[in-house]
Amino acid sequence: MAGIITLLTDFGTEDSYVGAMKGIILSLHPGVTIVDISHNVPPQDVTSGSFVLSHAAPFFPKGTVHMAVVDPGVGGKRKPILIETEKYFFVGPDNGIFDMALQREKVKQIILLTNKKYFLGYVSPTFHGRDKFAPVSAYLSLGVDPSLFGKRTQSINKLEFKQPPIHNGKITGQIIHIDRFGNLITNIDEGLLRRVFKNKAFQTEVGHIIIKKLVPSYAYAKDGDVACLIGGCGLLEIAVKNKSASKALMITRGTPVEVSARDKTL
Amino acid sequence: MAGIITLLTDFGTEDSYVGAMKGIILSLHPGVTIVDISHNVPPQDVTSGSFVLSHAAPFFPKGTVHMAVVDPGVGGKRKPILIETEKYFFVGPDNGIFDMALQREKVKQIILLTNKKYFLGYVSPTFHGRDKFAPVSAYLSLGVDPSLFGKRTQSINKLEFKQPPIHNGKITGQIIHIDRFGNLITNIDEGLLRRVFKNKAFQTEVGHIIIKKLVPSYAYAKDGDVACLIGGCGLLEIAVKNKSASKALMITRGTPVEVSARDKTL
Amino acid sequence: MAGIITLLTDFGTEDSYVGAMKGIILSLHPGVTIVDISHNVPPQDVTSGSFVLSHAAPFFPKGTVHMAVVDPGVGGKRKPILIETEKYFFVGPDNGIFDMALQREKVKQIILLTNKKYFLGYVSPTFHGRDKFAPVSAYLSLGVDPSLFGKRTQSINKLEFKQPPIHNGKITGQIIHIDRFGNLITNIDEGLLRRVFKNKAFQTEVGHIIIKKLVPSYAYAKDGDVACLIGGCGLLEIAVKNKSASKALMITRGTPVEVSARDKTL
Repeated sequence: MAGIITLLTDFGTEDSYVGAMKGIILSLHPGVTIVDISHNVPPQDVTSGSFVLSHAAPFFPKGTVHMAVVDPGVGGKRKPILIETEKYFFVGPDNGIFDMALQREKVKQIILLTNKKYFLGYVSPTFHGRDKFAPVSAYLSLGVDPSLFGKRTQSINKLEFKQPPIHNGKITGQIIHIDRFGNLITNIDEGLLRRVFKNKAFQTEVGHIIIKKLVPSYAYAKDGDVACLIGGCGLLEIAVKNKSASKALMITRGTPVEVSARDKTL
Repeated sequence: MAGIITLLTDFGTEDSYVGAMKGIILSLHPGVTIVDISHNVPPQDVTSGSFVLSHAAPFFPKGTVHMAVVDPGVGGKRKPILIETEKYFFVGPDNGIFDMALQREKVKQIILLTNKKYFLGYVSPTFHGRDKFAPVSAYLSLGVDPSLFGKRTQSINKLEFKQPPIHNGKITGQIIHIDRFGNLITNIDEGLLRRVFKNKAFQTEVGHIIIKKLVPSYAYAKDGDVACLIGGCGLLEIAVKNKSASKALMITRGTPVEVSARDKTL
Repeated sequence: MAGIITLLTDFGTEDSYVGAMKGIILSLHPGVTIVDISHNVPPQDVTSGSFVLSHAAPFFPKGTVHMAVVDPGVGGKRKPILIETEKYFFVGPDNGIFDMALQREKVKQIILLTNKKYFLGYVSPTFHGRDKFAPVSAYLSLGVDPSLFGKRTQSINKLEFKQPPIHNGKITGQIIHIDRFGNLITNIDEGLLRRVFKNKAFQTEVGHIIIKKLVPSYAYAKDGDVACLIGGCGLLEIAVKNKSASKALMITRGTPVEVSARDKTL
């Protein structure tokens, strides 16, 4: 057991919601270490939450409980779940929020959270983060066996998130995240680029702009230059040196990105 | 002793203020657990800070020190105080910031913080959070007896915050908080609604809109629907499914809300 | 050893970057206490980051590791460094970020971080915060000797940040930071004012406004009053009571400030 619980939500930091969850967790497991991954996921944006979680979760020690609550369906039919993988526990709504993180994990079992013994005495229909997921995460971090929280299930819901398709040697992806610096992050990863283009040069087209420059890091571009690079997450990014690429190129999340070969060796 | 100190301020997270307070606390009590409730209370908005604190504080373990610094009167005549209740310690300025949290607590004693032994050597007239409240909170979390910080007092200042009045079977409240999702939170709680309307249906009027729909959770409304519900805080809320009610209905904090009976059973 | 690592970055709290760094640190040193000073330094603003760090760092216990990553030159020629002072360890890029904090510290040694044994196995050219600075900070907090991380160097890069010059008894400084309340913080400190003006009254000119009022704290001014005061950081500030001075006076960061004597005793 790592004794660590990470939190990812769209609750923001202006309200009492995050504090209430931490109070519950610390009441049940006073010695636990709570780490905020982010509470600033755009409201109800499950895909964005899944992306952020997937790039932070794998750096935590074995045994960490990753609790994620971006939960537009709270109080409705979506199920509360616990997923145990070889390294971690994931706790939250069954709406695809863990989809991207699970691509790197080996799933051992999926449990539907039904045992009320591990919920708060009164469960509000609008705040399962506090009333179900926080206490379940705390009990998990104390070593309670996953099977005690409910029955196993076989399938979970997936994000409507597609691997970028390849046609005629072109990869068609999209901008799935814009970070604080305005860098445009695509869903095209380094491994895919290598498989498709091998040692050939490629160019990236986004919003009618064709970018041929591929740099190892921001420091290799000149001020105002538009360039591609492989970011810290291993994904193809489009950046404008010392500017917000999102603002400079007027590109928003969801914009298609096409990567194709150039007749040149890298 | 819980060994936990929670912090609620309007200091934001761009400046050095919160870090400085945490440095002081950890210097005096290295093993303490510090939990941020929020540092994004709107600047100098004591009422909003009181609301957020009151909905997070009760979930923490017995013995927790709740330190709150929304303090427009810093360096002036307002007194620095410590309130001991059956469960908690509250430390901060005597300006009503603890008012709403204290409605659920049984007060044991109120102490004026005057003993300079527990302040920093030099007290800045503009930053009592760092120079008085942080060290006092740290010493409290170490088990220092409340009576050592100063003399008892009997009364504390109250917020100008009224319980919603009832006339001719109508409750007249107001929007006291707008959360990150744009939900409009009123000062009318579930218990009051039950006492006034019992098992009768009621309708809510805000900004010339009459809302008859009362749903158990957001998931029960349709996209774009305006509906009322009892939120995670136990208060009547007005929400627009998958939208910001504040923006969609153009309602701001302070707007009056009127709840009246309908000739129907719930 | 304090077992404390503080973090200051411009990464924001919307992305996975901060979570990933914390995961690395906790994987290497599970019992360490991590404190966020700020992740909301304006993007790539090394001077602002240096300012915020310098006003939070000195309040932490001896042995604290202060890690700061505002790093526009990441992946380029700027060196990763570790500075050991009598009280602390500072870890980050050699770009002046530690400049202001070091003015209060006695430097013992400066080490270029070159020993790959203490980096992640794969070092991304865009994310040294995660791949170099986080593991080095974790190892330092575990007691690894600074000399093991690389070779000593004698000089580090400085900010282009000047002490305010004095001509004909006038101090010419500038607004170096605007805090969350809109207070305008200058680079003119209390000690300098005393040395130049002794017990004489002075006036402050900023953006064609002359301010003669000097108050001990915000509480001593009237609503809407423009006044000067010595803030919690020991620096001359310009404030408008219960308003944002930045908005009310339309002053931005970098605006010059001139302080001159009045023919009056304070």
